[in-house]
Amino acid sequence: MIDYRLLQALSAVLEEGGFERAAHHLFLTQSAVSQRIKQLEAQLGQPVLVRSTPPRATSVGQRLYNHMQQVQQLEAELGLSGAPDNMTIRMTVNADSLATWLPAALVLPEHDTLRFNISVDDQAVGLRQMKQGEVMACLCASAERLNGGSVVPLGKMRYRALASPEFILRHRLHLQDGEVAAENGSPVHRERLAQAPCLVFNRDDPLQHWFLAEVANTEPRRIHLCPSSEGFVQSALAGLGYGLMPELQIYQHLSTGRLRDIVPGYVLDTPLYWHHWQTESQVMVALRQSIVSEAARHLYPLVDPG
Amino acid sequence: MIDYRLLQALSAVLEEGGFERAAHHLFLTQSAVSQRIKQLEAQLGQPVLVRSTPPRATSVGQRLYNHMQQVQQLEAELGLSGAPDNMTIRMTVNADSLATWLPAALVLPEHDTLRFNISVDDQAVGLRQMKQGEVMACLCASAERLNGGSVVPLGKMRYRALASPEFILRHRLHLQDGEVAAENGSPVHRERLAQAPCLVFNRDDPLQHWFLAEVANTEPRRIHLCPSSEGFVQSALAGLGYGLMPELQIYQHLSTGRLRDIVPGYVLDTPLYWHHWQTESQVMVALRQSIVSEAARHLYPLVDPG
Repeated sequence: MIDYRLLQALSAVLEEGGFERAAHHLFLTQSAVSQRIKQLEAQLGQPVLVRSTPPRATSVGQRLYNHMQQVQQLEAELGLSGAPDNMTIRMTVNADSLATWLPAALVLPEHDTLRFNISVDDQAVGLRQMKQGEVMACLCASAERLNGGSVVPLGKMRYRALASPEFILRHRLHLQDGEVAAENGSPVHRERLAQAPCLVFNRDDPLQHWFLAEVANTEPRRIHLCPSSEGFVQSALAGLGYGLMPELQIYQHLSTGRLRDIVPGYVLDTPLYWHHWQTESQVMVALRQSIVSEAARHLYPLVDPG
Repeated sequence: MIDYRLLQALSAVLEEGGFERAAHHLFLTQSAVSQRIKQLEAQLGQPVLVRSTPPRATSVGQRLYNHMQQVQQLEAELGLSGAPDNMTIRMTVNADSLATWLPAALVLPEHDTLRFNISVDDQAVGLRQMKQGEVMACLCASAERLNGGSVVPLGKMRYRALASPEFILRHRLHLQDGEVAAENGSPVHRERLAQAPCLVFNRDDPLQHWFLAEVANTEPRRIHLCPSSEGFVQSALAGLGYGLMPELQIYQHLSTGRLRDIVPGYVLDTPLYWHHWQTESQVMVALRQSIVSEAARHLYPLVDPG
């Protein structure tokens, strides 16, 4: 049997980001925490922590941390007094969900000792973090099931290509008088679309490139990288560039006319999936159900009926 | 004299995130790009790139990249035809500025070939990135001048500790009938504040801890980590937790009553500074002036008059 006092020290060092804060958290001296980590490493014959600032888990350290979390969840569900009040759900989600519909799904009144540790990243990173045990679940655009995992389809998030009216006018992004909307736009119009400054969330954000490829068979030449959901919208409102934004986030600006479609009628839907491990604890079941039902209220169905 | 074709290859590999995309960008074959990097490394007698995915600059590679950027800026300012149209200003800013007042300051009509590459991080990371040449400027809370750098005070961003009315009621965060508001609150009230779920942006965000230390001489026991400005506000609206939010971002929710002060009258001001290098190009001067004037419109003065 594993000595869980040692794993508790390991968890505290990782969660608190250091030996001193871990000691404070556990009501121990710093040297007692350090002793426990060393004892754990002696038993295993290998290090569990990289002594960086903050300390990071080695591969085996991460597996132990993950195991500790599962044990704590199971303990919490026993409902005994003395069950840990620091059960933490670590998950990686896409930025646009966190900026719109997701937070309401995280309010679980029956599990009110729960804590969330949310990371924002794209699908490639999120699923890798899940495999490595760094997060317990992942909300992303990939339907590819992890070995031992389950995937729940949530719906489609609808994006529109938007800019401020002044921006559209200045860069003449709407078809001008006399221009014919040929397939993929007229060459002149296509060139204006390619030249217009384009907002991109980060290097992994393909939406703007997909948009331009589809409507004008070209790619953006001038890109601003703006890795913030709200900063992205504010940058569009200010006229810094155009970009693809979730309808859920900007319906208000559409209704006031502060943002307008660049290509009226164009929408881009991206699917969203919830990835979790097959052995779900009660609280993970409750979270999944809450996420599925909140998603159904806000996202478009993944498969069109009919 | 440096062979700038080689530096151009290096810049493209770093900016595009790979040899293939760099080749595409430069209209070269991938092997030509690879040749140029090797030639550069042969001349220097040391590697300029770590061959990871994406490739990263070595220390000397980063210095060369930084130099290349400065040369490109100077070239662009010559105003000759053929000047590069890909002048990129890389900067690290705090998340809350990017989500509120900053984007409007980035619209510089006289410099309309400019591109921004924005990173979101806190002051410690931002200033380190500036020292290492990864970014050219930094907007953060630190007034400490870098060696060779200049610091411009911008103003104070005002935060308020807010939650949804339901959340305040459920966790009984306002003083209850008969409770006396002693210094630092009554012990019972203090305990309720400490127990209430608290939103924290990331491990470097001290605002909630400062708030609780000041109003109740305690610290939050149950924390949700939510690294997104808009996700933070949405989480507060949904009732997941309380947290400190910039007045600029939530005035609308204050006026509709969807968010309320936890401790009426409490505000927390954090200063903001613009860090740039002393040798400023024309475009960096224009950017600084735009940022200073936009900040003056939205932030509180750093030194109270009188």
